Amino acid sequence: MTDPIARRTMLQGAALGAAALAMPQMALASPADLKALAAELAKSHDTNVKRLQDWIRLPSIAAENRGYPEGAEHLVKLLLDAGFNHAEVVPTSGKPGVFAKLDAGAKRTIGVYFMYDVKQADPSEWVVPPFDGALVDKPGVGLSLVARGATNQKGPQATFLAALHAFKATGRKLPVNLVFVGEGEEEIGSPNFHEVVHRADVLAALKRCESVFMPFASQNPDGGVTINLGAKGIIELELIASGEKWGKGPKTDIHSSYKASIDSPAWRLVKALDTLVSDDGNTPMIDGYGDNIRPLTAQEKALNADYAKRTSEAAAKKSFGVTQWVDNISWEEAVTRNTSRPTVNIEGLVAGYTGPGGKTVLPGKAVAKIDMRIVPDMTAADSLAKLKAHLAKRGYGDIEVKMSGGYDPTTTSIDSALIKTQAAVYKANGIDPVMNVRLAGSWPGYLFTGPPLNLPAGHFGFGLGSGAHAPNEFYVIESANPKVRGFDGAALGYAEFLYALGAR
Amino acid sequence: MTDPIARRTMLQGAALGAAALAMPQMALASPADLKALAAELAKSHDTNVKRLQDWIRLPSIAAENRGYPEGAEHLVKLLLDAGFNHAEVVPTSGKPGVFAKLDAGAKRTIGVYFMYDVKQADPSEWVVPPFDGALVDKPGVGLSLVARGATNQKGPQATFLAALHAFKATGRKLPVNLVFVGEGEEEIGSPNFHEVVHRADVLAALKRCESVFMPFASQNPDGGVTINLGAKGIIELELIASGEKWGKGPKTDIHSSYKASIDSPAWRLVKALDTLVSDDGNTPMIDGYGDNIRPLTAQEKALNADYAKRTSEAAAKKSFGVTQWVDNISWEEAVTRNTSRPTVNIEGLVAGYTGPGGKTVLPGKAVAKIDMRIVPDMTAADSLAKLKAHLAKRGYGDIEVKMSGGYDPTTTSIDSALIKTQAAVYKANGIDPVMNVRLAGSWPGYLFTGPPLNLPAGHFGFGLGSGAHAPNEFYVIESANPKVRGFDGAALGYAEFLYALGAR
Repeated sequence: MTDPIARRTMLQGAALGAAALAMPQMALASPADLKALAAELAKSHDTNVKRLQDWIRLPSIAAENRGYPEGAEHLVKLLLDAGFNHAEVVPTSGKPGVFAKLDAGAKRTIGVYFMYDVKQADPSEWVVPPFDGALVDKPGVGLSLVARGATNQKGPQATFLAALHAFKATGRKLPVNLVFVGEGEEEIGSPNFHEVVHRADVLAALKRCESVFMPFASQNPDGGVTINLGAKGIIELELIASGEKWGKGPKTDIHSSYKASIDSPAWRLVKALDTLVSDDGNTPMIDGYGDNIRPLTAQEKALNADYAKRTSEAAAKKSFGVTQWVDNISWEEAVTRNTSRPTVNIEGLVAGYTGPGGKTVLPGKAVAKIDMRIVPDMTAADSLAKLKAHLAKRGYGDIEVKMSGGYDPTTTSIDSALIKTQAAVYKANGIDPVMNVRLAGSWPGYLFTGPPLNLPAGHFGFGLGSGAHAPNEFYVIESANPKVRGFDGAALGYAEFLYALGAR
Repeated sequence: MTDPIARRTMLQGAALGAAALAMPQMALASPADLKALAAELAKSHDTNVKRLQDWIRLPSIAAENRGYPEGAEHLVKLLLDAGFNHAEVVPTSGKPGVFAKLDAGAKRTIGVYFMYDVKQADPSEWVVPPFDGALVDKPGVGLSLVARGATNQKGPQATFLAALHAFKATGRKLPVNLVFVGEGEEEIGSPNFHEVVHRADVLAALKRCESVFMPFASQNPDGGVTINLGAKGIIELELIASGEKWGKGPKTDIHSSYKASIDSPAWRLVKALDTLVSDDGNTPMIDGYGDNIRPLTAQEKALNADYAKRTSEAAAKKSFGVTQWVDNISWEEAVTRNTSRPTVNIEGLVAGYTGPGGKTVLPGKAVAKIDMRIVPDMTAADSLAKLKAHLAKRGYGDIEVKMSGGYDPTTTSIDSALIKTQAAVYKANGIDPVMNVRLAGSWPGYLFTGPPLNLPAGHFGFGLGSGAHAPNEFYVIESANPKVRGFDGAALGYAEFLYALGAR
């Protein structure tokens, strides 16, 4: 879950965002409270950072079945230490989730969402071992934690926990009650998180919440912030062509010299893949795939235009290493497509011999790893059904469609208290946030924003991080830029946010 | 280089082959000579087998740049020990080759071709470490060497060397002079072997030869033998689509969420691959690819029919793990296509994330490993040029065509002295060989059968082996079936062959 464009490219001193125009005054924290909390955060800085490093050293990676159930058990301990009255591991059909409550006797209750799993990492691509929790001084950026999970999502989450520790240590009551839900399968598409959210007592607790948020390092290198009003849904799956299922071709890799008389599952996969997108590879051609797309509203179009105006196309292209967008479209059109167009992407291809040089085999099996991003009002279930029907209609019913995870898109209104409060806290700190209509990436917010809860849900947080899913992912601990908050400042930001949520 | 069909499926007591009908009587070895040689081979059995095992333990794998130049230097030593007057490493633009001569003062001179490299091996797929040279008792087959290179091609080649040692040890002169050429890049398509064969002094020596042969374990489990009258040519290459070369899409793997605005090299590869074959994946669609195919002659058609009649379709299907041939064709038609149809095969696909589960990346590069088998009168150079033109014509000129090796098809007349002598030696031992018009696999015989040499070239040898390019490749050392020759018997067979070649 990441938004490199806004994270890396917001311009300084840009014009007031359309969304910001609507901001009311908010009751924020008292200077005295913040001063005391800041002092405590400074005092316990080393302890708080070590807590994060220890968490990094216990990776949970669902795709590799690594670090379970330890990851869930460790999270429960982190929550209890931070002051939650109750915290428990919640078993699911897959990796366990976590449910916790912190009753502060406050008027309002807020939901908090964590993920304790991280993306895979290939150590050979890293400047430091990805699970050591190394602190590296990045010139111009500051002392940073360079590790898998540094910013996605353990860094921001540990920073939020540090804020809770500060309330506890200074004897302050939280301004809001908290209901916590966490999962360990976010990076494989949250296939079982609904079992956590929909467990009767968890659902009942969440129904008492006004909104749900996830700690997130929202600042870009210049200090600016993006607020995401939603995210695309996603389906991750493997398309598997095999002699086994097909009934033609070999069941294992055989010598390639007999291709003249034996069918090839690899060619079958290529032919099936070819039908899924337009010739330029950019428009999904799955029958009926986009039927339920809800057109952008006038307000959403205006927000996209403002987003394009206030962010740097050149920096975005640089961050992706591209020289042009599809069809040579404009930056505003690129932003618009990222927020409104579904995709069908090849994550990976695997068949036969994959080592150095060649090997004369006719593979018995060929696999395409696919992710499909969907927008309102498309659903994961309907899109998967349409993919299967599309393949079956063309005679590719033997190609296995193995979905590993996925969920629907999520949307939260710019007029919701959650978004208005976020904007107010940033503005009170001199930051005019850019509104992002829809994150091109995905997170399972639909479980909160969709029925039966229908709650506002989003991300909040000061701080800077980057490299989610990439080598050398980092999260700034001590910022070299005064406009960007380091660990302690970001922790204080969560306190400001909780005060603002509680005081409305 | 392997022919599983004939190797595994010849029927016992089958009708007399069309080719065999034409066999004249041949002058074979004297019983006294063979008796003495057999006794010597029995006496030095352990030494001869250990020589083979030691060779196995020194693998040369071009694709992994492993075992060079040691492999070539070791082969030179093996040749000198076996009685060659001269043997030298021959440098090439790639891995070194070997040239050697044995002047026995005989009337006739024969060329011998070896490969000292072997195919890659994944130890995790083997019952024994592939480079240990382990001897395993295979029930119903006999004591066998299970190792990479056991039958392809060190086993048969070491057996031939054992025969030369026997001549030397018993003080017998070879019935023919030998000119030897060897290479260490056969498994990557012999990209530089022509530099060895065409070196002035090597070419001059080869021009004195009547024919060239490669030691080969030709017997199937029932003792029957196939004689190959030629082999398909091959081109091995990688098709590489990349943001780097394309100028669109990312240069490295990036987060997949931006597919809506960024082009995909992986989809580009799929679209380009789609144009190379028919919808069923079985007919090459490269513009003009088959223009130069020479139709089968009436004699070749008759040989294919005889081959189909005398081999078991059921056993062939079983050996490949298939239940039907392409288009549900008959066994005779399958044999015909294997000998007369060019192919375009996907050896492997590699793009983006290839590990367990999924990873949401948009790959910056996608690679298809391809082998193309060609038949007379197609050539490797012309076929490669046509592939490049085909891609360029469709706007895929940015897709890199990286050829790693390949060469033209090879054909030797059934009426040549080489083939007639082979058949006569087998028949003298009660084996009526099946004639295979063209091996579906490949070997660089074109360097001998094509200009400027235009010599008959092929394979000869008793003995049994299987699993070339596959796990648990083996070569029988002590046969459980009296109809199948073990190491000593196969070595004696080479002596019989040399006598027959020398006595014509």
